[in-house]
Amino acid sequence: MGENNFIKIALVGAGSVATHLGLALLDAGFKVEFVLNRSSDHGEVLAQKLDARFVTSIEGLNHPDLVIIAVSDDAIPIIARQLVGASFPVVHTSGTVSKDVLRETGSDYGVFYPFQTFSIQSEVDFSKVPVCIDASNVPFSNKLEDLAHCLTGTVCLIDDEKRKILHLAGVFASNFSNYLYTIAEEILIKNDIPFDLLLPLIRETAMKVQITPPKEAQTGPAKRGDLSTIKEHLHLIQNKPELLELYKLFTNNILKTYSHQIQKDDI
Amino acid sequence: MGENNFIKIALVGAGSVATHLGLALLDAGFKVEFVLNRSSDHGEVLAQKLDARFVTSIEGLNHPDLVIIAVSDDAIPIIARQLVGASFPVVHTSGTVSKDVLRETGSDYGVFYPFQTFSIQSEVDFSKVPVCIDASNVPFSNKLEDLAHCLTGTVCLIDDEKRKILHLAGVFASNFSNYLYTIAEEILIKNDIPFDLLLPLIRETAMKVQITPPKEAQTGPAKRGDLSTIKEHLHLIQNKPELLELYKLFTNNILKTYSHQIQKDDI
Repeated sequence: MGENNFIKIALVGAGSVATHLGLALLDAGFKVEFVLNRSSDHGEVLAQKLDARFVTSIEGLNHPDLVIIAVSDDAIPIIARQLVGASFPVVHTSGTVSKDVLRETGSDYGVFYPFQTFSIQSEVDFSKVPVCIDASNVPFSNKLEDLAHCLTGTVCLIDDEKRKILHLAGVFASNFSNYLYTIAEEILIKNDIPFDLLLPLIRETAMKVQITPPKEAQTGPAKRGDLSTIKEHLHLIQNKPELLELYKLFTNNILKTYSHQIQKDDI
Repeated sequence: MGENNFIKIALVGAGSVATHLGLALLDAGFKVEFVLNRSSDHGEVLAQKLDARFVTSIEGLNHPDLVIIAVSDDAIPIIARQLVGASFPVVHTSGTVSKDVLRETGSDYGVFYPFQTFSIQSEVDFSKVPVCIDASNVPFSNKLEDLAHCLTGTVCLIDDEKRKILHLAGVFASNFSNYLYTIAEEILIKNDIPFDLLLPLIRETAMKVQITPPKEAQTGPAKRGDLSTIKEHLHLIQNKPELLELYKLFTNNILKTYSHQIQKDDI
């Protein structure tokens, strides 16, 4: 545990972010005193994992040093209203909600945003998760930074506006890529080809850009301007309007990016 | 080296597939006798790497046991025409070109397709690359399988039609995902946010689907039906028609996939 004043931490929420953050705090030697959640099933499970007390309302929190709100974006204002005047230092963990939603809580407030895709069932190496900090004042920001450094190697100060941009970039790079994996899986399954064959390619595509800028790492028929392969692909999916729309949009954008001159009717 | 009759291998091409395949053959103890390439610069570099003889025409090949054509799709028919009647066993390495382009070469023919994204500058662990085999006859198919098993843990028999489907799925999962990484990088750079912050998320997104089906691994505002975040994102990119088009297409598809009922004008 770092030299930190956060002795009694309260975690609000029991979903995937709360779970992974709670476990990371525990691993780093912090004590999560309270898990607060509306529904008892998930809340009790997480409280047990963290050896914390499970409570269902703000009144159950006994002067925590830090309240971490790890609930869905639309539930944050509801919790924030319940905390008005409570005078507990408080952060939320959202990429999109402004820190100012916590302004009326009567103490230090800020954001502690772990920038990663979490699912309850998948393990995450939290030491590799960037944590983005924003705070109502410098001393509190420093405290949050110290806390974050106990959990991970990458900590950055990012204000509301930039955090939203980062989240947007994450939606493109992660959420939309995952949807492309789903499409690819469906294409394979419909043709009795095992999805496993695709996994090394998915892995390598993500690993390549860890060292090579994605614009340089691009491969494929559109990058090469290989119109005959593109036409074959369009033929293969001619009866799938959703796939056609995505394929054409990406292919046209990639052709343009790599300056291939094509006729409008070519694809 | 496996029990294999491919003693004298000739590699046609000197691009990224030829390079990575040649190096993998060398690592597995095979001898690449010849590197054939039109242009001498790349060809000589690769020949030197593989300790092979560099030749610029088919006539330079002295009775190879196997010719591996690893050139761009549109150059394969040109090489195939030069090999007509040569009676060398021959394969190409393309995901989209039919094996029948090699039918007139007068000997065994087939496909040896390493299903991975290769760039000359990035190292690849070839033992994790699936190799897809197709051949004109069973004994030759068995020989190719043996060869592939010397290079990698994953070998599969896939005919022309299925190989094209696999390649198409790869375009969605790899080429288009990489383009999304490019977009995300541009968004970040324009806002002075380091792209490095995104790398753990990209990695984790690809790693998650190694064990979890992508449809279950999906996260993000569209998956949750979080319309207020979606509207904020649309506002952030309102002056970027290319991003808007992609964002809306993905978001609508994901909303539909996870059965969120929305009004047509909502996004």
